[in-house]
Amino acid sequence: MSWLFYLAPVGAVVALFFAYFQSRQVMAFPEGSEAMQKIAMSVRAGANAYLRRQYRGVIIFFVVLFVVLGGMALLGFLTPFVPFAFITGGFFSGLSGFIGMKIATYANARTANAASQSLNKGLRIAFSSGTVMGFVVVGLGLLDLSIWFFLLKFVFYANLPEAAQIQQITQAMLTFGMGASSMALFARVGGGIFTKAADVGADLVGKVEAGIPEDDPRNPAVIADNVGDNVGDVAGMGADLYESYVGSIVASSALAVAAGFGFNGVAVPMVMAALGILASIVGTFFVRSGENAEQKVLLRALRKGTYISAILIAVIALPLVWNLLGKEHIGVYFAVLSGLIAGVLIGFFTEYFTSDTYKPTQDLAKTTQTGPATVIIGGLSLGMMSTLVPVIIVSISVLVSYFAAGGAASFEAGLYGVGISAVGMLATLGITLATDAYGPVADNAGGIAEMTHMDPEVRRRTDALDSLGNTTAATGKGFAIGSAALTALALIAAFVDEVHIINPEFQFNLSITNPPVLIGLFIGGMLPFLFSSMTMKAVGRAAQSIVVEVRRQFKEITGLMEGKAEPDYARCVDICTRGAQREMITPALSAIIAPIVTGLLLGVDAIAGLLAGLTVTGFVLAVMMANSGGAWDNAKKYIESGQLGGKGSDAHKAAVVGDTVGDPFKDTSGPSINILIKLVSMVSIVFASFLMSSAILPRLF
Amino acid sequence: MSWLFYLAPVGAVVALFFAYFQSRQVMAFPEGSEAMQKIAMSVRAGANAYLRRQYRGVIIFFVVLFVVLGGMALLGFLTPFVPFAFITGGFFSGLSGFIGMKIATYANARTANAASQSLNKGLRIAFSSGTVMGFVVVGLGLLDLSIWFFLLKFVFYANLPEAAQIQQITQAMLTFGMGASSMALFARVGGGIFTKAADVGADLVGKVEAGIPEDDPRNPAVIADNVGDNVGDVAGMGADLYESYVGSIVASSALAVAAGFGFNGVAVPMVMAALGILASIVGTFFVRSGENAEQKVLLRALRKGTYISAILIAVIALPLVWNLLGKEHIGVYFAVLSGLIAGVLIGFFTEYFTSDTYKPTQDLAKTTQTGPATVIIGGLSLGMMSTLVPVIIVSISVLVSYFAAGGAASFEAGLYGVGISAVGMLATLGITLATDAYGPVADNAGGIAEMTHMDPEVRRRTDALDSLGNTTAATGKGFAIGSAALTALALIAAFVDEVHIINPEFQFNLSITNPPVLIGLFIGGMLPFLFSSMTMKAVGRAAQSIVVEVRRQFKEITGLMEGKAEPDYARCVDICTRGAQREMITPALSAIIAPIVTGLLLGVDAIAGLLAGLTVTGFVLAVMMANSGGAWDNAKKYIESGQLGGKGSDAHKAAVVGDTVGDPFKDTSGPSINILIKLVSMVSIVFASFLMSSAILPRLF
Repeated sequence: MSWLFYLAPVGAVVALFFAYFQSRQVMAFPEGSEAMQKIAMSVRAGANAYLRRQYRGVIIFFVVLFVVLGGMALLGFLTPFVPFAFITGGFFSGLSGFIGMKIATYANARTANAASQSLNKGLRIAFSSGTVMGFVVVGLGLLDLSIWFFLLKFVFYANLPEAAQIQQITQAMLTFGMGASSMALFARVGGGIFTKAADVGADLVGKVEAGIPEDDPRNPAVIADNVGDNVGDVAGMGADLYESYVGSIVASSALAVAAGFGFNGVAVPMVMAALGILASIVGTFFVRSGENAEQKVLLRALRKGTYISAILIAVIALPLVWNLLGKEHIGVYFAVLSGLIAGVLIGFFTEYFTSDTYKPTQDLAKTTQTGPATVIIGGLSLGMMSTLVPVIIVSISVLVSYFAAGGAASFEAGLYGVGISAVGMLATLGITLATDAYGPVADNAGGIAEMTHMDPEVRRRTDALDSLGNTTAATGKGFAIGSAALTALALIAAFVDEVHIINPEFQFNLSITNPPVLIGLFIGGMLPFLFSSMTMKAVGRAAQSIVVEVRRQFKEITGLMEGKAEPDYARCVDICTRGAQREMITPALSAIIAPIVTGLLLGVDAIAGLLAGLTVTGFVLAVMMANSGGAWDNAKKYIESGQLGGKGSDAHKAAVVGDTVGDPFKDTSGPSINILIKLVSMVSIVFASFLMSSAILPRLF
Repeated sequence: MSWLFYLAPVGAVVALFFAYFQSRQVMAFPEGSEAMQKIAMSVRAGANAYLRRQYRGVIIFFVVLFVVLGGMALLGFLTPFVPFAFITGGFFSGLSGFIGMKIATYANARTANAASQSLNKGLRIAFSSGTVMGFVVVGLGLLDLSIWFFLLKFVFYANLPEAAQIQQITQAMLTFGMGASSMALFARVGGGIFTKAADVGADLVGKVEAGIPEDDPRNPAVIADNVGDNVGDVAGMGADLYESYVGSIVASSALAVAAGFGFNGVAVPMVMAALGILASIVGTFFVRSGENAEQKVLLRALRKGTYISAILIAVIALPLVWNLLGKEHIGVYFAVLSGLIAGVLIGFFTEYFTSDTYKPTQDLAKTTQTGPATVIIGGLSLGMMSTLVPVIIVSISVLVSYFAAGGAASFEAGLYGVGISAVGMLATLGITLATDAYGPVADNAGGIAEMTHMDPEVRRRTDALDSLGNTTAATGKGFAIGSAALTALALIAAFVDEVHIINPEFQFNLSITNPPVLIGLFIGGMLPFLFSSMTMKAVGRAAQSIVVEVRRQFKEITGLMEGKAEPDYARCVDICTRGAQREMITPALSAIIAPIVTGLLLGVDAIAGLLAGLTVTGFVLAVMMANSGGAWDNAKKYIESGQLGGKGSDAHKAAVVGDTVGDPFKDTSGPSINILIKLVSMVSIVFASFLMSSAILPRLF
């Protein structure tokens, strides 16, 4: 084993220290006036209450699955560490979200306060808060993987031969990934439902019915709305990207043996991740601008940081891969490179389709002139059109990384390369997540500025930061989706490999003319639709209950509209919390049940088909939903900036309809699909031996 | 060759005679008052003008492809009859649509006139008109296939050995299918754009801006709107289902040799089709009811006809298959049966999701209470949810027909069975299309009743017929989509088979872990999204030009609003025509270019992957779009019937937004996807030899 392996824990610890240092910077800044502190406290309390409740609910799920996996381990289907790895994966994924959210709820008032001094000061605080999140995610992810790796290698399985060691280790790591994905799904779906229900509820009654402005403190759902930004867009996103990061590493590690690379093959993704952390830290130092920079300059500053990190990785990865795998496998380096480049390109095209500085979103804004129906048709067709380029980029990336890593000789080696390209794409996660996670903080800061009646200039500045955040968030979603597709492809190979480890004699028939594979493709292709349907309906139902509550408060609390009485914020937070908890269960369970039922009925060929169908359709649908949603949001903002009639015009009303439809698209259903793809894949791998012993159809024919 | 083969031309001729007889019945009925005649004439003239123009444009396309195919034939890539088969396929597909539309434009005023006597009389005329369409489609389809078959077998290739004969014949038949599909795509896309542009244009300016009722003669787009029902919903649907019908027959015929069934294997789908025609004729005699029957009774009458036909086919198919293939292949009968049953089940579930007598659409109607955004979210999630059951039904049908037909021994035999199940599903097309095609006639009749100020009772009756038509149309779409999926699966096998005929040594690697296959899956999975985006945008652009024209006429023609001057109807028809012609080209070309480019770059493995991805995602997306659209339409009708505030309420306005979004979903983009799936498959087969000689990637690795 190369000494470079030790870079992984080192990089992880450095990331966590850096995050700690950044959080100190945020906390050192004053939180502002008493009114600001009070609101920040309410938001903090609401967010904490939500997460406590969420974790309480999720624990039941984890305990049940722990028992199931434990039972399977006792029966010999799994190695004994699998249930524990599962639990820790869930724990650390949740912890990443929790810490990220914690700092975001401390940074929101501070950002508003800083923005009252200058735009750049506001950016610094918000960005530092995002940096904490970014580096906690990569730090915890890499640390935990390292701990499991070293524990299993040097303590528990120290006496096994190398091949058996790797097999045990990667199985535990995959289960760790499955735990992270499960938690991420709950966090994304639950948080997504919470935030959109609160948002829609606050808007529908407050803005539309009562006619009070957004973020007006008289609106009973206004705190819930701000809590939502934190539990959905921050905690949900943190858990989500933790899952992506860990998933890409474990997927390629799992293929290292089959690919013929041994322990150094396991080392490559982990060392790349460590390199990415160090490069991202360097990158963050380039995110700064003059005191009164324009928005465009700020965006350039953020981009500069990301690009510098990417270039550093591209340069240093070459000697690292050379050292780890030798000259004959240097092709793996090109897999890293293709992922890095694909990530940047997907980010760029996502921005092209969703930013109001380009034609697609400007054209979409024009459709508001003929009413809401044409806005919806326009946004859907924009999103559908935007799937073309990412599909081509991912296809090229697959082709390059597959053949560069030696796919012509062994498909496991090829798909190891595809997995590595996902690692390459996510290597810059520390900094891309930082530029992404600062958006909701700016959004919250704007809310606080509004509620505490600060100078309108402050709101203008936080709006500028927020709108910048929309662009970087769209880019971040591009990364999450692109890496999900690549990771999922590697996981298909890991599944095939796992089946062969369990039974080396097993004869796959993975041809697309084999009916179980075809049927698997159909079921997998349908799952993202079914899942999105459930999550969108869930948002609708949860929003309905908030609408009822807000209406009730407006009616029953005397003096509320006049500003003489305070609304019952906590009740709205509570209703959103309960709604989200109730609604997240069915979609999450369906992700676990679908592959198991398909496998039990139709066998492992069908599961492989299901995974392929799910990856393909899930990718396309997720891109479409994210981009439609992003474009609708920015088309609305474009009109609000004074174009086409501006705020309050009929065009604006039509744009609001688009934005409301886009909310669950881009913040609940779309991003959840990424997690769904990987969770289903990992469930299939972990349950493979059980399914192989029990499938029905293969016994019939 | 069994004598039963001669049933095919006999059945075809009987169908055409029956259609002729039905058209005489329609024409014998008086057309009503002079005003009614005049409007009917305008609609007829507009529809004819449109079709003339469409055919003029399409001829260029056919000539170009004729030359391309002719050149390929000269170079030895194809047999010499292929270019001619292609032309006749297009011609007869267009002719089916033309005749169906012709009779529909003669039946509309007659239906209004008959409805002034009784609901049942109105139904009789409209249904007879639909019957003409239904039997022209099946009659022409089967006749032309028979002619090609007998010509090639007994005249041109009489001296070849049997295996070579079948090979030549099926290649010609497949190209015939490609011609039919090309024409169908133009008809569906062009007609769909026309009808929805006119509809949206008439509504946006007439109803919303000028505040005049629907079908008001002062609206300059009102004739174009009625023309649209005929060119889109009648001529487009006719060409579409002609293509489905022919496609299912040629797909299974093409596999007959590889499946080991010889000429009798080719006979089975054609004999089943003939049987279906005779059974459908019997079925039509059961569609009648008392003079003053309620709507529910009428629906039962329509269903009775279909069910009786289906049962007849189920019974008689058994001895026929036995006779043709012998006892050992009687499993093929179960393939027929599984298709029949799957068709009925998909129809039933489609109705469940889209009819306002069931919960899903009623729940959707309730979402109108909170505005247009929740209606859109509700409708999209309803459509997504509705994909679950059809996927399961199709999966079971694939499994049953594959293994029943001997798939365990040879996958070509299995997929021959899947193709036969599509034939079984479409066997009742004569009568199901009749119950489907009468809807637009009733819709037109309602328009004429409104424009000529007939007794409101007449409009009430035509509305009842129309709403019944919505339900049967949804069922018909279920058939079209279900059969498209099954046919496309058979075509994948036909493609694989064709490659093996061209080069028996060719080694496929169709495993889903092979990157060209994976990339093919991605590209295929993205195509339906890209295609839908293009067709939806096209509707939007064409509608915009109509909006401008209608606004201009309202402004410039003095006395128009007061009813003193006549609008320039013809100009609106002309603008819609030109818009549809312009807009239909890109989507249609993309269907032909996509598989060729993919094949040239990545080879035939990738094409097979592309076809699989396209079939899966196309199926799911088409189901979703059709059902979302149908449910929005009926939710609006539900409110218009007086529920939840009725016409003019805010709920109704929100429902209208849903309906407007649903229009291109269900009448342009959704149904075009079915054709797209098959056209891409047939293009791949026809161009297979060219692609095999020129693919780039396979030479690199």
